[in-house]
Amino acid sequence: SQYEYVRKFEQDDALLPLTWVVIRVDGRGFSGFVARHEYAKPVDTRGAAVMDAAAKAVMEDMGDLVLAYGHSDEFSFVLPPSSNVYKRRASKLVSTVVSLFTGAFIAAWPAAFGPDVPLMEMPVFDGRTVVLPTRAVLRDYLSWRQVDCHINNLFNTGFWALVGDGDDPAVANKLLCDANSAQKNEILFSRFGINYNNEPELNRKGSIWIRDLEVTDYVDARGHAGFRVSRKLVNVNTDLIGDAFWTSAYPHLLADVKLKDHHKRIKAERAAAGHGADAPGASQ
Amino acid sequence: SQYEYVRKFEQDDALLPLTWVVIRVDGRGFSGFVARHEYAKPVDTRGAAVMDAAAKAVMEDMGDLVLAYGHSDEFSFVLPPSSNVYKRRASKLVSTVVSLFTGAFIAAWPAAFGPDVPLMEMPVFDGRTVVLPTRAVLRDYLSWRQVDCHINNLFNTGFWALVGDGDDPAVANKLLCDANSAQKNEILFSRFGINYNNEPELNRKGSIWIRDLEVTDYVDARGHAGFRVSRKLVNVNTDLIGDAFWTSAYPHLLADVKLKDHHKRIKAERAAAGHGADAPGASQ
Amino acid sequence: SQYEYVRKFEQDDALLPLTWVVIRVDGRGFSGFVARHEYAKPVDTRGAAVMDAAAKAVMEDMGDLVLAYGHSDEFSFVLPPSSNVYKRRASKLVSTVVSLFTGAFIAAWPAAFGPDVPLMEMPVFDGRTVVLPTRAVLRDYLSWRQVDCHINNLFNTGFWALVGDGDDPAVANKLLCDANSAQKNEILFSRFGINYNNEPELNRKGSIWIRDLEVTDYVDARGHAGFRVSRKLVNVNTDLIGDAFWTSAYPHLLADVKLKDHHKRIKAERAAAGHGADAPGASQ
Amino acid sequence: SQYEYVRKFEQDDALLPLTWVVIRVDGRGFSGFVARHEYAKPVDTRGAAVMDAAAKAVMEDMGDLVLAYGHSDEFSFVLPPSSNVYKRRASKLVSTVVSLFTGAFIAAWPAAFGPDVPLMEMPVFDGRTVVLPTRAVLRDYLSWRQVDCHINNLFNTGFWALVGDGDDPAVANKLLCDANSAQKNEILFSRFGINYNNEPELNRKGSIWIRDLEVTDYVDARGHAGFRVSRKLVNVNTDLIGDAFWTSAYPHLLADVKLKDHHKRIKAERAAAGHGADAPGASQ
Ligand SMILES: Nc1nc2c(ncn2[C@H]2C[C@H](O)[C@@H](COP(=O)(O)OP(=O)(O)OP(=O)(O)O)O2)c(=O)[nH]1
Ligand SMILES: Nc1nc2c(ncn2[C@H]2C[C@H](O)[C@@H](COP(=O)(O)OP(=O)(O)OP(=O)(O)O)O2)c(=O)[nH]1
Ligand SMILES: Nc1nc2c(ncn2[C@H]2C[C@H](O)[C@@H](COP(=O)(O)OP(=O)(O)OP(=O)(O)O)O2)c(=O)[nH]1
Ligand SMILES: Nc1nc2c(ncn2[C@H]2C[C@H](O)[C@@H](COP(=O)(O)OP(=O)(O)OP(=O)(O)O)O2)c(=O)[nH]1
Ligand SMILES: O=P(O)(O)OP(=O)(O)OP(=O)(O)O
Ligand SMILES: O=P(O)(O)OP(=O)(O)OP(=O)(O)O
Ligand SMILES: O=P(O)(O)OP(=O)(O)OP(=O)(O)O
Ligand SMILES: O=P(O)(O)OP(=O)(O)OP(=O)(O)O
Ligand SMILES: [Mg+2]
Ligand SMILES: [Mg+2]
Ligand SMILES: [Mg+2]
Ligand SMILES: [Mg+2]
Ligand SMILES: [Mg+2]
Ligand SMILES: [Mg+2]
Ligand SMILES: [Mg+2]
Ligand SMILES: [Mg+2]
Ligand SMILES: [Mg+2]
Ligand SMILES: [Mg+2]
Ligand SMILES: [Mg+2]
Ligand SMILES: [Mg+2]
Repeated sequence: SQYEYVRKFEQDDALLPLTWVVIRVDGRGFSGFVARHEYAKPVDTRGAAVMDAAAKAVMEDMGDLVLAYGHSDEFSFVLPPSSNVYKRRASKLVSTVVSLFTGAFIAAWPAAFGPDVPLMEMPVFDGRTVVLPTRAVLRDYLSWRQVDCHINNLFNTGFWALVGDGDDPAVANKLLCDANSAQKNEILFSRFGINYNNEPELNRKGSIWIRDLEVTDYVDARGHAGFRVSRKLVNVNTDLIGDAFWTSAYPHLLADVKLKDHHKRIKAERAAAGHGADAPGASQ
Repeated sequence: SQYEYVRKFEQDDALLPLTWVVIRVDGRGFSGFVARHEYAKPVDTRGAAVMDAAAKAVMEDMGDLVLAYGHSDEFSFVLPPSSNVYKRRASKLVSTVVSLFTGAFIAAWPAAFGPDVPLMEMPVFDGRTVVLPTRAVLRDYLSWRQVDCHINNLFNTGFWALVGDGDDPAVANKLLCDANSAQKNEILFSRFGINYNNEPELNRKGSIWIRDLEVTDYVDARGHAGFRVSRKLVNVNTDLIGDAFWTSAYPHLLADVKLKDHHKRIKAERAAAGHGADAPGASQ
Repeated sequence: SQYEYVRKFEQDDALLPLTWVVIRVDGRGFSGFVARHEYAKPVDTRGAAVMDAAAKAVMEDMGDLVLAYGHSDEFSFVLPPSSNVYKRRASKLVSTVVSLFTGAFIAAWPAAFGPDVPLMEMPVFDGRTVVLPTRAVLRDYLSWRQVDCHINNLFNTGFWALVGDGDDPAVANKLLCDANSAQKNEILFSRFGINYNNEPELNRKGSIWIRDLEVTDYVDARGHAGFRVSRKLVNVNTDLIGDAFWTSAYPHLLADVKLKDHHKRIKAERAAAGHGADAPGASQ
Repeated sequence: SQYEYVRKFEQDDALLPLTWVVIRVDGRGFSGFVARHEYAKPVDTRGAAVMDAAAKAVMEDMGDLVLAYGHSDEFSFVLPPSSNVYKRRASKLVSTVVSLFTGAFIAAWPAAFGPDVPLMEMPVFDGRTVVLPTRAVLRDYLSWRQVDCHINNLFNTGFWALVGDGDDPAVANKLLCDANSAQKNEILFSRFGINYNNEPELNRKGSIWIRDLEVTDYVDARGHAGFRVSRKLVNVNTDLIGDAFWTSAYPHLLADVKLKDHHKRIKAERAAAGHGADAPGASQ
């Protein structure tokens, strides 16, 4: 029609090729939302389960995502440089993730909170994309979020302990704002016997979804041994700031390599390690 | 922390000031969604009611929106040039609207579809922002969407009539693709006695939410007459391509004028029309 | 080649369609440049002539430009909404204008400054694009620049008069910074007998290039009268903040209308004014 | 003033932090420009000298640039990830580089072309920025340009040899377009005895400006040996596609490391290599 020309007003928002892309969602006004739903403090495991379920649904829907990290009312989803999902269009990416997340959050609510705590209002999430040029910057991004988790949780653990103990909220807030990290730990320990390091990993580290490699050995009908490489969603609550997570625990997470190339690599590694083709149980 | 620097990777996506902004949402893979939920054809009034409820929720949440237009699985929301909601940040706008829309769609489902048709999967919407420099281009944008509604509905009305009558879908599709608008009307009339113009306005025109001006006269405690100007959400299914909608029916819709300035204008208009200050029932 | 893929890293920077586009260039470090070339103060007419020549060259090169406004070391070039020159790509626009401007500035130097004042260093200009949605905002943009011209010139006229009179530059600067506009006028008048309003229009208003309409009447070989409409570059130093410039002096400047449509309009206007087709000297 | 608000229409165009940025300039309509100035074919060393001088001037002006590569009428300038020059604003970068380049080209003309070949028209360059996330992509970008140099030069060498030999330009063009690389070499050799590999490196490889590290040993007044690390502009015409250029010839070019860190590294390397602090001529 004569109106078709307005299509040209849609501006191209494709994100820079071959970069890491993070899509972060964050609950809008969750301070109020958690209060109205009487979340446990500092961290409600039911609420965290709902967030985890929502993040899992996003991971399942968008197969290119390699990792998601979240805590409190936020989750960051990571696309590798090789991904061209939605042609890397920023608004498609952010809107689809936010829509999936919102829907899955709502769907997961009843199982987590049970019939006595119905969802009284629809949760709302904002979203944004962040383009990161290198693996190093991506790791710094994720470290930034996990440090934020730590800072907030240490504060909140102290705050709710103090307030639960009868302290005036304003006084508790002031006390903690004036204290450094070590002093917050000390307050927790001396007044409540809480060793912060024994707090649940979920609270202290947040939640990580990874699409881990899974190697399945098999022997086919004709007796030939082989193996399949696939990916499996795994949830962990652990440190991702240090190198261990990336180099020891999940060394292939950020390799941005296709399954068939993982297969090649593993085959070569096994061969080098002496798994001969005719050895019993050998893969080829 | 040492990681804070990654904040700088968030790029500023503020939309051009003093322009009209459209945020359009569209259901992802709704061809399948409507099939799996056995929507009536060509338009399911229950489905349309859910879309309308979702759009209404967005309108209620974001007070700056002046109009929303939708049909099928899409809705376009219109922000006026004066709006600075979310600092006009594109990703905030699109993500918030999509999240609100998704949640409200889910919330509205049971009332519209009843207990026998549960929501079997979460709906997913994509979203985008479109910046339009002038009122004229905005009207062309909306006309573009309503022409699309018309074209699709004329086609779908014919298609489902033919298929319902036993035609092979591929044959029906071919027949309609080869027919121009007049011929599609003719097919409908000659084979099914359907006068397309008598089809429901909802189907032919789609759905419009407007924040209409409402003028309420009152007399205060001391006997002084006055009036209040407020806005009210109104839903109509009507033509918005012609001038009538904009100049006769809702002449102030795109004025982008504050309530207090509407008050001034109306007061001046009434004065000019002879509502003297001391006339009975006069407003001041 | 295998390297062609890097083309995809060039991001689309097309400016919003149907908007006014300003390309503004500004001399880099011109405080030093003018000092090293001993420009007259506050405004050197030779320097202004070079700037004007450079701007004229840009206007001549890019036929879509409708107006340019400049003062000091800057010029703003205005493209109308209808223009699609360089597909509205921001970097093409800004780089081409800056390159044309730089080259033409250098080329114009000798004629303006004469053999005794050679160009000792190449001038450097930065550039930027600014998208403006409406005529009203464009006028405000131009008013902004002309107000800037006024403010700077009033200040500089006072400053150089004071310094020329032996005042310490820091003292002169302080005196003027503390004075409002009326007080600056007063200083000029009481100490130097200068009536600021009698300062050259060039200094006070800056320089405007417009592509004005020119109507040429003719009588063809067969005795038929007609007229041609063309555009001609005109330079003026006048106020563009008030309405007179836009409504009386150059009412068609921002019409963004093709020559042939101007022809039609003028023909109609003449007809209405009684220029009959058979009247002597009538155009058709 | 009341017009200041238009400043907000300048959109932020800062390029993604910590990425490689290329600014490429290319002559506008140089096919005509070189013809009108009777450039030698296929490559005019005077013209190349002017381009090199212009590129050198840009490198000298913007100290952050680490490399420039050019051929024909184009040059690409490379900023490292660490650079924040002009706050990485795209329009500032592209306009400043284009303005510098244009001015320096004009300034360099007379020395290269002599009094008999005056510059008859000002050259015009367009410019653009390209953001590249990693060293690998940057190398591919530069390889892309050098492959382009090779392809064009092989073609042009053949074309002008054929045309110089009396062939019809259209016929020569067709012959070469239909030939692959080996066949073009063969034509050159069999018809003209030209071994393409003996053509000047300038023609075949283009021109590279690098800011190379320079280490200067010294002994200070008190007899202590030391060394200074500085950077020096160097021009080479060589292959940059293979690894040798990057790993052997200029291993530190893309390190994006500060001079003082190079100093540290070299000191450590010398120490490891046995330059004891008390060895004669040792640096510290
Ligand atoms: N008690 C409790 N509070 C939680 C839990 N998870 C999140 N929250 C609260 C803590 C914060 O008040 C809030 C998240 O902080 P934000 O900075 O995102 O603020 P909020 O969502 O209120 O505002 P926003 O719209 O994001 O600017 O949610 C939980 O498990 N238990
Ligand atoms: N039968 C029926 N179909 C409807 C109704 N409303 C929407 N639909 C269908 C018609 C189309 O197949 C589909 C909307 O078309 P789209 O172009 O948005 O395609 P779809 O959502 O499948 O793909 P997309 O992810 O948007 O590219 O939804 C309805 O009320 N009744
Ligand atoms: N004496 C004299 N000075 C002039 C004339 N035209 C321009 N200028 C000077 C006044 C200012 O110092 C300078 C322009 O001011 P800008 O704000 O553009 O500063 P400048 O170019 O030094 O720095 P920039 O690189 O633009 O940030 O040029 C003139 O005709 N005569
Ligand atoms: N004979 C000769 N021609 C040259 C030399 N250097 C460049 N050229 C010519 C070859 C090409 O015709 C032209 C550069 O090609 P471009 O693709 O940049 O085309 P051109 O600048 O004409 O158009 P453009 O405005 O960039 O799209 O310059 C030279 O040294 N000698
Ligand atoms: O939402 P905040 O306050 O935690 O901080 P932010 O998310 O960086 O701010 P915004 O949501 O406005 O981008
Ligand atoms: O989704 P379509 O096919 O109706 O058309 P579009 O929305 O313009 O396409 P896209 O969703 O890819 O922007
Ligand atoms: O250059 P200035 O200081 O007059 O002001 P500006 O041009 O708005 O600043 P910038 O050149 O940094 O955009
Ligand atoms: O200028 P060309 O034709 O060599 O190719 P390009 O530079 O990629 O095209 P454009 O100048 O239009 O970006
Ligand atoms: Mg936020
Ligand atoms: Mg939040
Ligand atoms: Mg949060
Ligand atoms: Mg779509
Ligand atoms: Mg759809
Ligand atoms: Mg649709
Ligand atoms: Mg400036
Ligand atoms: Mg300047
Ligand atoms: Mg200036
Ligand atoms: Mg080009
Ligand atoms: Mg060129
Ligand atoms: Mg070229």
